[in-house]
Amino acid sequence: MKLVTIDDIRDAAQRIATDIVRTPLLPAGWGDPDRPLWLKPENLQPIGAFKIRGAFNALGRLDPDVRARGVVAYSSGNHAQAVAYAAAAYGVTAHIVMPEETPNVKVEATRGHGAEVVLCGAGQREQVADELVIRTGGVLIPPFDHPDIIAGQGTIGLEIAQDLTDVAAVLIPISGGGLASGIGTAIRALCPRAKVFGVEPELAADTAESLALGCRVEWPVAQRNRTIADGLRSTPSELTFAHLQQVLDDVIVVTEDEIRSAVRELAYRAHLIAEPSGAVALAGYRKAATPAGPTAVVVSGGNVEPPMLREILSV
Amino acid sequence: MKLVTIDDIRDAAQRIATDIVRTPLLPAGWGDPDRPLWLKPENLQPIGAFKIRGAFNALGRLDPDVRARGVVAYSSGNHAQAVAYAAAAYGVTAHIVMPEETPNVKVEATRGHGAEVVLCGAGQREQVADELVIRTGGVLIPPFDHPDIIAGQGTIGLEIAQDLTDVAAVLIPISGGGLASGIGTAIRALCPRAKVFGVEPELAADTAESLALGCRVEWPVAQRNRTIADGLRSTPSELTFAHLQQVLDDVIVVTEDEIRSAVRELAYRAHLIAEPSGAVALAGYRKAATPAGPTAVVVSGGNVEPPMLREILSV
Repeated sequence: MKLVTIDDIRDAAQRIATDIVRTPLLPAGWGDPDRPLWLKPENLQPIGAFKIRGAFNALGRLDPDVRARGVVAYSSGNHAQAVAYAAAAYGVTAHIVMPEETPNVKVEATRGHGAEVVLCGAGQREQVADELVIRTGGVLIPPFDHPDIIAGQGTIGLEIAQDLTDVAAVLIPISGGGLASGIGTAIRALCPRAKVFGVEPELAADTAESLALGCRVEWPVAQRNRTIADGLRSTPSELTFAHLQQVLDDVIVVTEDEIRSAVRELAYRAHLIAEPSGAVALAGYRKAATPAGPTAVVVSGGNVEPPMLREILSV
Repeated sequence: MKLVTIDDIRDAAQRIATDIVRTPLLPAGWGDPDRPLWLKPENLQPIGAFKIRGAFNALGRLDPDVRARGVVAYSSGNHAQAVAYAAAAYGVTAHIVMPEETPNVKVEATRGHGAEVVLCGAGQREQVADELVIRTGGVLIPPFDHPDIIAGQGTIGLEIAQDLTDVAAVLIPISGGGLASGIGTAIRALCPRAKVFGVEPELAADTAESLALGCRVEWPVAQRNRTIADGLRSTPSELTFAHLQQVLDDVIVVTEDEIRSAVRELAYRAHLIAEPSGAVALAGYRKAATPAGPTAVVVSGGNVEPPMLREILSV
């Protein structure tokens, strides 16, 4: 299987440079003294999450004639908004398939970027997306299972390596694995002595189990859906799993309480609103004895509903 | 009176470059269509506020032999932590005078940066600081009334001009006026067509009144202390007032409710925790008909106590 390379990631960085926020790496003086903590705040991207990087790279890589036919995506979360936002920037139409139970605020946010939202029944979204591709002639932009998406997310790793050349450890949330595949690839290439950790909720720790077994294990959707970290309920594809096997040193598994605590720590100490999925890497930093030295923690997104945020902060 | 120049600000930018976070200018797609909104998130600086820029510039400008004797400051807020942090970075002692009623969390944060905190009675802090200067031989670092502080804060304006060359309006909170003096000076020099607005709480709108009258009007402390924006209770000095007369086009005055609403908007839409003082510029953007065109709003700080944050978000 052909894996994404550092050159793919460098190309992506050039392609998306004017479309994304070049997020700073924030020194967090309140980390452990022997593991100075740095935060990569991807919640500050225009749609509030890193997904915009992969989306812009995927759309940017399309032949202009093909791109002009529009794009299609299925997602109830940040990928929906990312594709809608990138399509608007390119001036092409976007059809986004979302499950009927998607919170209205997310549907409206996606429509707000000019996308056409197509609601569908549970478990039907891939089929509905395929039909839309046929009907519209548009191109499907998958949420993680594509080299262009992985290379786009990998630009975060490139930036970490630029800003923190002596980084000793990088902690990254894992869901479908596109983010960790991309960042891990960049860090392996540019900072070969650094350790790369994935972080997963214990209620959706399929990747930890899969990596331990050496083959992909599927957890039932209902089981993965138990975690508050609603962005981490996907499971790696063959492509991302192959990357994760190459680039991860270990996976740290965190509890729901540890995730909530990390959301509070980011709000009160770093002045950042993270969604639970965006805070798991900090929870991993707090939980595990990662190597001494400068440590980069990826805060992957901030799209949390106000009632849930208030509930988490009220403890 | 000699005012700070753009060259002073350029010098400051070079001096503090490795000490501060070069904050990005964040596009906020949810602003008014004819006034595209950009946020300058200074709440992401190490101590959670812009004050670190002026502190590092002031300490950096000292002769090393003088600096070695240590520094002294009086502040119950972000300037205390900024001077403590900068002194620690330079490896010199810091004595910080704080009123006895300062919340313990702020005292501890200042001590956490290695500073010696000296508590004093109400209204005594300048006298106690003067005594410390004599006793320790240290240098007093004022919170805003000094060209080096103004030039340091002005580096924010330099960065806005670099990142948003066609900026039409810049909105800046006003308290002692160091921040608005510095940013205004940079914007006047680099983007002469842009309008520069100060923003004040109506409960501490002494600067709006002073500028309208053409001379400094003092509001009683008890009156200014009514605002929730506890970082905006100071009043300009002769030096900062002279700058403000030169660089401000107008002052926008906002209510307490408008400030609270801006804190919520920053949390829920921009994923940023701002203290009330740090949110007033966005409140000004929402209130006033500032000119059409790209608009930069300075989010000056994020140090809000958790109970107050929860109360504001709970509406």
